[in-house]
Parts: sequence; structure tokens; C-alpha cells
Amino acid sequence: MNFDLDLSIEVLERTPVTLRALLAGVSETWTRATEGPDTFSPFDVVGHLIDGEETDWIARARIILTDGPKKPFEPYDRFRHRARNARTTLPSLLDEFARLRAANLTLLRSWRLTATQLDLRGEHPRLGQVTLRQLLSAWVVHDLGHVAQVVRVMAKQYTEAVGPWVPFLPVLTDHMVPRS
Amino acid sequence: MNFDLDLSIEVLERTPVTLRALLAGVSETWTRATEGPDTFSPFDVVGHLIDGEETDWIARARIILTDGPKKPFEPYDRFRHRARNARTTLPSLLDEFARLRAANLTLLRSWRLTATQLDLRGEHPRLGQVTLRQLLSAWVVHDLGHVAQVVRVMAKQYTEAVGPWVPFLPVLTDHMVPRS
Repeated sequence: MNFDLDLSIEVLERTPVTLRALLAGVSETWTRATEGPDTFSPFDVVGHLIDGEETDWIARARIILTDGPKKPFEPYDRFRHRARNARTTLPSLLDEFARLRAANLTLLRSWRLTATQLDLRGEHPRLGQVTLRQLLSAWVVHDLGHVAQVVRVMAKQYTEAVGPWVPFLPVLTDHMVPRS
Repeated sequence: MNFDLDLSIEVLERTPVTLRALLAGVSETWTRATEGPDTFSPFDVVGHLIDGEETDWIARARIILTDGPKKPFEPYDRFRHRARNARTTLPSLLDEFARLRAANLTLLRSWRLTATQLDLRGEHPRLGQVTLRQLLSAWVVHDLGHVAQVVRVMAKQYTEAVGPWVPFLPVLTDHMVPRS
């Protein structure tokens, strides 16, 4: 499937609602659970997505549109949220993410990007040259991957509880060495 | 984490809302996409979860409570939904799943299960003896695993589109041989 801006926005605009549906009002037993040391809980994932809104996707799109490859992107700090949200609650993070995402999508729509602009390039600190089209596609997949992570982390809390069902529930054995 | 009925219901009651948040109003480009032949699209997943409500989890819980291991469970037909929903729309399936799930959770709550009842056993056609506690835990994990599948299937449609980002987006390389 080729990149399509409208189809991408269909996904991007739903992520805050999806996370709210999954997590609002849920006990911390689920929302603060992880897959092990240095892995994200659902709470951390929402914080990480907020970091993406504030420092990554739209910031990088702007660099591509304004400066192109001569100005490399800032690296994405995957742990910025830890200090930022140390005293915050999940409901407040869910609200914040929804607000930031809505504003970023309003901005993205306002650019009315052309095919030529989508082919413009930027310099990723580790991946080399990437197009705006690839950046926006990665934004969509990044959202979906982190929703998958939230439900996987929750599911794994019941690995023992399901007893003999483990082989029929492959989500329990995904990412035995957590990668995201 | 040990099985807990209230914590399980927290997850089970959110799945219909989560799927609605993810899928309602989304183009068929996303909702009818799959990971390859004989794998489930998001549309198929909702149908499969409906099959679970109608034929699996509560039906098996009843067998455990009423008959115990002397009456083996019916096998779960993973493809029942194909014929059942051939002429149905996704909005109608999302409504149907929400209605069935709500009724099943009302029933589950009405049983006011005791620890002794949760230890009762049934005979699974392939897994052997399982407890009611394990069955209800598996119901929770089954939901979460299929939400993970929905977002993974959607994400994979952009595998080409993200270009060099693939190694940073592990959801794209999960289940290269689809298992669920």
C-alpha cells in the first residue's frame, strides 16, 4: 500500500481515542505494568507518544520543508518522558496527548502537502536521507506499534494465569526480548 | 500477576470501545487488509471475537460450572465468522460485539464467582484440564492479542512506505509467519 495522507490521518487522529478507550479508568496494576526492566508501561507509552508530538514528527517535517537534508534531525530522546511525567497522572497525559495530536493534525492539514513536497528529503541522524512521505508513514506505524505494545504488556501480566493456554495466545510470547 | 475477576472485567468491558475507537469510520483499505492468505483482517477479528462471545468463553464457563470435566468443550471454530458475516458491515459487527460482550459481562458478574468455583475444572479438547480461572484469564489475553493483531495488520500495510525506518518499527517484523 502506498502512502496516502488522508488514510494516514485516519489512523493518526484515532490514536488518542484508542488509548483512552483502552486505559482511562483502568487500575495501575495494568497501566504501570511492564515487560521487565527498562521497558515501557502503558503509562510510559503515552508519555513517549507525547514526546513524539512535542519533539519528533512535526518538528522533523518542518525541518524537511524548511531546510532539507542540510539540517539533520535532532535525535529522538526515548526517555524524555521519564523526568517530564514523574509527577503526572495518566488521565492528564491522555488529555495532553489528545490536545497535542489534534493541534499537530490541524497543522499538518493546513500545509496541504503536494506530491512534490512529500518527496522532499531530510537527514535522519541514524537512517540517512528520508523523504517526508516516509517520515509521515513512520509516524502512523509508530502509533500502531505502540498501541500493540500497550496491549502486549497488559496481556503478559496474565502469562502465568492462563496456565496451559500459552501456546494458543501468541501475544504472550511476542518480544521475549522487548524491542520497543 | 494473579487472576482477579474485577481486573479482568476492566479489560473485557473496554475491548468493544477500543475496537470502535480504532476502526469505526476507517477506510476498508485498512479494515479489510490482512497479513497474507488465510490471515485475519481487522474486520475478521471483530467477527472472530463475536464468535467467541456466542460459542466459546461463556459457553465453556457454563460447562465448567454445570458439568465439569466430564463434558469436554466444543472446539472453537476459528472460521465460523467467514460465512456468518459474508454480507455484514463493520459498523454492524462493532455494534453486535458490544451488545454481546455487555450481556456476557452482566451474566459473568451475576454469577458472583467464589474462589472455589474459579478452581473448578473443565476438559479442553486439546489442552486437557483447565480451571475456570485459567479460562477467564485466557479470555482477557485473547482480547488483547486480537487488538494487537488489528494494529499489527494495519501497520504492515505501510511496510514499504516507511522506507529505511523498518528496523526502528518492530511491529512491522512481528509474526512474519502469522500465528493468530
